[in-house]
Amino acid sequence: MLTSALRVELERIVGQDHVIDDPAALQRYGTDAMNRGTAADLVVLPGSTGEVSQVARACYAAKVPFVPRGGGTGYSGGAVPLRGGVVISLERLNRIIEIDEENLLAVVEPSVVTGDLQAAVERVGLFYPPDPASLRQSVIGGNVAECAGGPRAFKYGTTKRYVLGLEAVLPTGEVIETGSKAVKNVVGYDLTQLLVGSEGTLAIITRVILRLLPRPPAVATLRATFADIDGAVAAVTELLRARVIPATLEIIDAECLESVARYTGAEMAPAGTGAMLLVEVDGLEQAVSEEIIRVDAAVRTAGAREVLRASNEAERQELWRVRRELSPSLKLIAPVKFNHDVVVPRGRVPQLFDLVARLRRESRLKIPCFGHAGDGNIHVNIMVDPGEEGAMDRAQEAQVSLFRGVVALEGSISGEHGIGFAKAPYIALELSPVEIDLMQRVKRVFDPEGLLNPGKIFPG
Amino acid sequence: MLTSALRVELERIVGQDHVIDDPAALQRYGTDAMNRGTAADLVVLPGSTGEVSQVARACYAAKVPFVPRGGGTGYSGGAVPLRGGVVISLERLNRIIEIDEENLLAVVEPSVVTGDLQAAVERVGLFYPPDPASLRQSVIGGNVAECAGGPRAFKYGTTKRYVLGLEAVLPTGEVIETGSKAVKNVVGYDLTQLLVGSEGTLAIITRVILRLLPRPPAVATLRATFADIDGAVAAVTELLRARVIPATLEIIDAECLESVARYTGAEMAPAGTGAMLLVEVDGLEQAVSEEIIRVDAAVRTAGAREVLRASNEAERQELWRVRRELSPSLKLIAPVKFNHDVVVPRGRVPQLFDLVARLRRESRLKIPCFGHAGDGNIHVNIMVDPGEEGAMDRAQEAQVSLFRGVVALEGSISGEHGIGFAKAPYIALELSPVEIDLMQRVKRVFDPEGLLNPGKIFPG
Repeated sequence: MLTSALRVELERIVGQDHVIDDPAALQRYGTDAMNRGTAADLVVLPGSTGEVSQVARACYAAKVPFVPRGGGTGYSGGAVPLRGGVVISLERLNRIIEIDEENLLAVVEPSVVTGDLQAAVERVGLFYPPDPASLRQSVIGGNVAECAGGPRAFKYGTTKRYVLGLEAVLPTGEVIETGSKAVKNVVGYDLTQLLVGSEGTLAIITRVILRLLPRPPAVATLRATFADIDGAVAAVTELLRARVIPATLEIIDAECLESVARYTGAEMAPAGTGAMLLVEVDGLEQAVSEEIIRVDAAVRTAGAREVLRASNEAERQELWRVRRELSPSLKLIAPVKFNHDVVVPRGRVPQLFDLVARLRRESRLKIPCFGHAGDGNIHVNIMVDPGEEGAMDRAQEAQVSLFRGVVALEGSISGEHGIGFAKAPYIALELSPVEIDLMQRVKRVFDPEGLLNPGKIFPG
Repeated sequence: MLTSALRVELERIVGQDHVIDDPAALQRYGTDAMNRGTAADLVVLPGSTGEVSQVARACYAAKVPFVPRGGGTGYSGGAVPLRGGVVISLERLNRIIEIDEENLLAVVEPSVVTGDLQAAVERVGLFYPPDPASLRQSVIGGNVAECAGGPRAFKYGTTKRYVLGLEAVLPTGEVIETGSKAVKNVVGYDLTQLLVGSEGTLAIITRVILRLLPRPPAVATLRATFADIDGAVAAVTELLRARVIPATLEIIDAECLESVARYTGAEMAPAGTGAMLLVEVDGLEQAVSEEIIRVDAAVRTAGAREVLRASNEAERQELWRVRRELSPSLKLIAPVKFNHDVVVPRGRVPQLFDLVARLRRESRLKIPCFGHAGDGNIHVNIMVDPGEEGAMDRAQEAQVSLFRGVVALEGSISGEHGIGFAKAPYIALELSPVEIDLMQRVKRVFDPEGLLNPGKIFPG
């Protein structure tokens, strides 16, 4: 319980102006993009690593749970309090401390917006590849905590690959620095990579050292439509056979295309299109010109019906329009979305789509799918109207069948969004009791009392 | 102590033919490339994951220490027993289980030789980038345990980047599977990356799922000589300014060039050469042609004296000759080599060479340096004749000054070789007491009794 003594102590640490307690705000800080969660008892906005450390210490001493929060754009409830307590919003730690062109790295505070960092490094000819869909709102600290991906992960990898080092506050208040500005470091266990993707359950990230790349000078975009999903997936295989690694390789199914057409009032693809691929290659001018020709040939070999190539930025934006309009359009199908990010080995994407077809029949629900075909990471959106008799139960069943199915296909129940509390009941479908026990014991190494972000990742 | 009961039990598990106890062999299995260590009490050669598990369980029950061993090519003593006990040599687990062209991955047992895997995947047009110098003898399991690098790590990253999943035996005998064949996976903590680089202290790796890339169809090689190290380093900066990321970017200093000349009896570079850069770019034909021109221009801008470009494979091999002859040549300088692999942020390589110049003066020892300039990862070889009065002490002092210096430059005391027992006394120069304590508590999660590979990583 949040006592008035703790409250006074927290106000002393961060200053009265940086404590939030009005009920509407507590509610807002108690949810994320999934729109589920419970209100915080109090929100504090520390202004420095030292203040984060003091806040953690104070909460620990009072045995009050506390939850670190970034942009609040997560889809699994990672930043949401479940048992009241204190939300530590890191929004004031939002500076780009350094962009080091010579060493190709950036040092940032956790609440730098991902898109802002990208723009800043691109202005000096550099490149930060991870591009979660939420990049205009999501922040680097949250991206690190969840190991965010995005379309470019196929070629460039997820957030994990770009984190060289972290400053983080342990639940008990000590500040650690993991990794370094050196691109290699094998001194002791890799705490950096242990913290990446740990969903704010092991430590509170207060500073991030990120590796950057030179910005690819050229990009080429191609859109291909197919009669069905199998054709689109065959094209992906064909591309890999041609040994092309596109920067992005997005697949969009027929239910998604219908949804966008309804939302925008404009057909996005020729009649009879069963699936669409959006492909981008990037790199040096010459290489890009060479590769896009190979992409064109590969998609045609796989039976593409219509192939469009963007010849300028406006055309490129037009080709991407369907992808951009997709998420908002889904709201027209049903008010609730079970937004999953399952992943299978790339070659098994056709089997994943077969599974989804079966779930559609069994659940009698719309399940529009799109995602990162190159990674085998497909966003499976189970759309439900909670007002419809039995629909929530059928969605729930479909979800569990989906999870079982991807594990049977040697995949994973989450490729990008993390477990949070939404998927915590299901990790035993993928991990053995021994593995879960190991992870829980690692959790206790960092957080003996279980006060940092409780109720996440682990069931029960 | 190894009791006869345990010995009988181990013979039962692996079969008498797979137990080694002749003194010469025990000695051999008790050392690595560093030529330091103590003899094992017994070596066992399990033939399956199940046998590894049973061996671990038996040792654990008897409270006898045990050490997993791969190719024995390490430079920090990671695979060497310090307190007797059992060496578990994984040499019989040496199969390439699967090369999956569709999903761009390989599944291998730990004792597949790195170079053999590379050759096997290259035969089908694929590519496994990590290329430690020992790749003709070192094995994947050891590469994973130490997070091996190599020249290509500059563009392609170290072993870490290629490990998608592991099967491993916990010290207490349970078998875990981490990660998966999917290229993304954010379910629970990243035990895969925690095990990579853990130097065989957390679990025994019995199977590895590796990510592969398409094999770059073209490569171009260029060698440039400079009046001094600063010139060579300036060329690296110039290259990055030209936004070129070569596959390899090796630097070789004057003491190394002298050593190779003495060893081969042939001058490797024009008189007065103070440093050499070996640069390779790879990728699609057109991109490579474009990039090597940029490399050529960049090294000339930085003041290169002689620039040679290979126009065929024979010329390429000739340009690399100096690098190949380097390690054997150092033996002529002095019998003992303190072979370090310190790493600093790339832009600080000149300061690292300044530091080495000071150490040469102070220690009056030869300290030939070469390595991966792009990564800031330089092999600093402190050469000592133990017969020379006071030389070992001076080498020891130089080593400690080197470690302190790289940490002050925001670098790390080891970028590739790991800590093993050789550098264990020095990790506190880089890690705080809180960080070391965290790591030791993580160790105890996996190995409560401290029986797996004791005496490694942590001091004391």
